[in-house]
Amino acid sequence: MKKLLSLAVAVSIGISAHVHADRLSSELIKPIEPAVVTEPEKVELGKKLWFDPRLSMSGFISCNSCHNLSMGGSDNLPTSIGHNWAEGPINSPTVLNSSLAVAQFWDGRAADLKEQAGGPIANPLEMASNHALAVDVINSIPQYREEFARVYGSPEVTIENITDAIAVFEETLVTPNSRFDLWLKGDDSALTAQELAGYETFKSIGCVACHNGPAAGGTSFQRMGVVEPYQTDNPAEGRVAVTGKDADRFNFKVPTLRNVELTYPYFHDGAYWELEKAVDVMARLQLGRQLNEEEIGNVVAFLKTLTGDQPELSMPILPPSTNDTPRPQPFGAK
Amino acid sequence: MKKLLSLAVAVSIGISAHVHADRLSSELIKPIEPAVVTEPEKVELGKKLWFDPRLSMSGFISCNSCHNLSMGGSDNLPTSIGHNWAEGPINSPTVLNSSLAVAQFWDGRAADLKEQAGGPIANPLEMASNHALAVDVINSIPQYREEFARVYGSPEVTIENITDAIAVFEETLVTPNSRFDLWLKGDDSALTAQELAGYETFKSIGCVACHNGPAAGGTSFQRMGVVEPYQTDNPAEGRVAVTGKDADRFNFKVPTLRNVELTYPYFHDGAYWELEKAVDVMARLQLGRQLNEEEIGNVVAFLKTLTGDQPELSMPILPPSTNDTPRPQPFGAK
Repeated sequence: MKKLLSLAVAVSIGISAHVHADRLSSELIKPIEPAVVTEPEKVELGKKLWFDPRLSMSGFISCNSCHNLSMGGSDNLPTSIGHNWAEGPINSPTVLNSSLAVAQFWDGRAADLKEQAGGPIANPLEMASNHALAVDVINSIPQYREEFARVYGSPEVTIENITDAIAVFEETLVTPNSRFDLWLKGDDSALTAQELAGYETFKSIGCVACHNGPAAGGTSFQRMGVVEPYQTDNPAEGRVAVTGKDADRFNFKVPTLRNVELTYPYFHDGAYWELEKAVDVMARLQLGRQLNEEEIGNVVAFLKTLTGDQPELSMPILPPSTNDTPRPQPFGAK
Repeated sequence: MKKLLSLAVAVSIGISAHVHADRLSSELIKPIEPAVVTEPEKVELGKKLWFDPRLSMSGFISCNSCHNLSMGGSDNLPTSIGHNWAEGPINSPTVLNSSLAVAQFWDGRAADLKEQAGGPIANPLEMASNHALAVDVINSIPQYREEFARVYGSPEVTIENITDAIAVFEETLVTPNSRFDLWLKGDDSALTAQELAGYETFKSIGCVACHNGPAAGGTSFQRMGVVEPYQTDNPAEGRVAVTGKDADRFNFKVPTLRNVELTYPYFHDGAYWELEKAVDVMARLQLGRQLNEEEIGNVVAFLKTLTGDQPELSMPILPPSTNDTPRPQPFGAK
């Protein structure tokens, strides 16, 4: 009897392991893996730069201003506030898991995080500085020069090294261990029946065709408004700005759904604050499906299982400016 | 011989302890003691609120925006940037060790940190919200209500509790273990000869008459420009705005010198970026003394020994807004 029971348990474990291995290979959303830090000093340097508002002309805006790591790596605004309270043109995408995306920015105009990081520094609607000035500022600070020397072998600060360090820090900003990932890896109790029902709807109506991969998005560019046009006042035209091809008009990078409950408001224009409405719009405009209230509730319940462990960060202490540091100009030269 | 040696050592320790006890009682600057946290959950709640930009109308400005804990608890700007890029009227004082001050704000118009905390939330040039709206925002977020229930015994959020939690968090933002404090407590090797010479000048010309106590300041209101008037475009008139007494015109709270190397630019108008120049101006205008370059260098060297351990903080993860949360209005109602 004892032997039989052991056999039954063994068979049961075998089946269970088989089912779970199947999930990892058969499901189109893959788990987020924890960051593997191979260059901790570079990450630490990148973190300082991430939080340093001296990369902006005003001395007020840092990377974290619009990709706030206390708020899902976003600013929770329709479009961002930039230098001189400029109204940004597009919704600030979350930095969380951004290393998993095929390209950066909504239109994919930056190939990778390093290329992306140089953009906001010099964008007059964002940090409104320029690369030469940003380098001068960091170069004027002895502690930064020491850190660059340790990490890059030379105390001379360059925009390449600044953006490289920021990018390497950003690569650590992944959010593993969401309940959905626990389920993917075999924990049947990680999701409720409602959440599983939502996931089934998500797959069966076709959301997963675009929202796939470890980030549940970020793997392709797709037209915003396939079945019906998307109504918006936002003038962004998407990927056509990069490729010049008319076929790419209104094509945007598919945003990640990881931590989507934290990254409201939604879409490239940030026009939708409620996840229920965003799901409804997507189903209708992209897939020609009118979901009922229960289905929407289920999908939203599933989407909330994609919230993972948020990065645990200690606030960096920034090295002070010196008498030689170019001064911030928040209100223009005086 | 061994006994004699022991005796000699004992005598030497006795003398040394005597000298050090003397320092603690005779010196007018006292050590900063580490924070004693008796209500950790309240501190944690206060930290969340400190970093939460939803207390502002725009959803962009938090307490930390102008009292940045990565930058000595200040914004390192002459005057602060507020809602709609408003140019603030006065230099943002450091929050570090602010619990040790006799009152809050440059003119002391708030009796304590709790009273202070309500000010910026409702100031149209700062966070530009109002207390009712701030309460509505926090009240709409279940995780905050749970935390308030645990900490204050009721899930109902009030402005009194919001500002109390922020103040209790701020009380933890002290900076012990500066090299100067190690010296005060008896470590003769903590200061160099130059730093000690600077401290002697600091005392002998009279700086310490106002910059005293554990915060090396914050204990009194004093006229800015005693011997000579202070030249500034800044219209702030100081404590007269609170007391209505003409004798209080241009009286300001003496700022702390703790962490002064991190809290540039200096004075209530933030007009001086270089510590050397600030020392020169103070000696001339307040004390009628023209210090030479060596004396100024010595005093600056001493002032840099007042930089203590900066608070070690983990970035809080803020609870997400709900569909019922009043939305931020960065660019006015739309």
